[in-house]
Amino acid sequence: MKEQDLRVYLVTDRLAAKGRDAKSVIAVALKGGVTMIQVREKEASARDFIAFAKAVKELAVPYGVPVVINDRVDVAVAAGADGVHLGQSDIPCEVARTMLGRESIIGLSVENLSQIPTANSLDVDYIGVSPVFATPTKRDTAEPFGLDGLSRAVRISEHPVVAIGGVNIETSPGILACGVDGLAVVSAIMGADDPRRATSELRQLWVNSNL
Amino acid sequence: MKEQDLRVYLVTDRLAAKGRDAKSVIAVALKGGVTMIQVREKEASARDFIAFAKAVKELAVPYGVPVVINDRVDVAVAAGADGVHLGQSDIPCEVARTMLGRESIIGLSVENLSQIPTANSLDVDYIGVSPVFATPTKRDTAEPFGLDGLSRAVRISEHPVVAIGGVNIETSPGILACGVDGLAVVSAIMGADDPRRATSELRQLWVNSNL
Repeated sequence: MKEQDLRVYLVTDRLAAKGRDAKSVIAVALKGGVTMIQVREKEASARDFIAFAKAVKELAVPYGVPVVINDRVDVAVAAGADGVHLGQSDIPCEVARTMLGRESIIGLSVENLSQIPTANSLDVDYIGVSPVFATPTKRDTAEPFGLDGLSRAVRISEHPVVAIGGVNIETSPGILACGVDGLAVVSAIMGADDPRRATSELRQLWVNSNL
Repeated sequence: MKEQDLRVYLVTDRLAAKGRDAKSVIAVALKGGVTMIQVREKEASARDFIAFAKAVKELAVPYGVPVVINDRVDVAVAAGADGVHLGQSDIPCEVARTMLGRESIIGLSVENLSQIPTANSLDVDYIGVSPVFATPTKRDTAEPFGLDGLSRAVRISEHPVVAIGGVNIETSPGILACGVDGLAVVSAIMGADDPRRATSELRQLWVNSNL
């Protein structure tokens, strides 16, 4: 088993930081107990993406928190990241595995239940079930799974499951009850007034649930 | 020396194909004598980009024409392309070289004369001097080099030089006189009424100039 603790999985979004420096928000979230970070940049040049990912990686190293890169395997290599998170339209997982090696973390988004059997056959380390609920921070997403769909996803998946899309402190207890391995959040941390407290509250849910 | 013949260097742009199927235009351009192809996709998903690049590579193989990928090193690996063409804000050349290996072709765009000494120190196979003239097909480009700037670029560069930006049958004789190694075109072929003829006319310029 690789070093991946998916419980409080932060997806970075510079725009969601409400004008604050995203790196400062991430630094504070790490203090609050983030367990994994995905760096997502849809607009930046590769070089800016690499620079930002390297900065995040540097922040995360002292906490032993792995950093994965959304979509771009080449950026992951260039930034010395711990892996990638891929969507259904991104680089195929098997190509990413060849490029990154066995020790890297590869996550895959699934947008509906019918994609899970295929995901089971792939050499990935977790799946992101996306979106659980409708959300404004990610565009062009599929129909939400809802809690019923999420429960079924957890049952069907042979990989650990991270819930993403509409995950926050209010929705998380219901999501945890579905048996997920991780809560992936964007604005619930990046946009929180107190990102450290928001993170530790999410972290505390895991303690309370004895998972 | 690697197998790279830069003389008639086609940069693909699906939008420039004026509603025609880009692959058909490329197939016809290969018949006309294209010597190298760069696949550029700014909007497509990685998976669409890979599929298109693979299709172009399949068309180019019988002609022994190398295919390089704009920006994305991971797409180049996934598509089995011959290399990459990188801009100043893309993946650093040394990272691309590590990922792709010594036999791959790596091209680098330079946007002004002051970037050429740095390019000389890099392990790249050619530079693209961009733009020679102002052009509508590429946005966010720097100040044009003009023919004087291009001549100076050729003198300063220790790598072969491909001219790009405003290159067409009318401007090419002046560009060739600057001593370039290649003419890179987008719309002069992708948007030509007769792409095969447009290509062979460009190719013929090289014969006439005895280069």
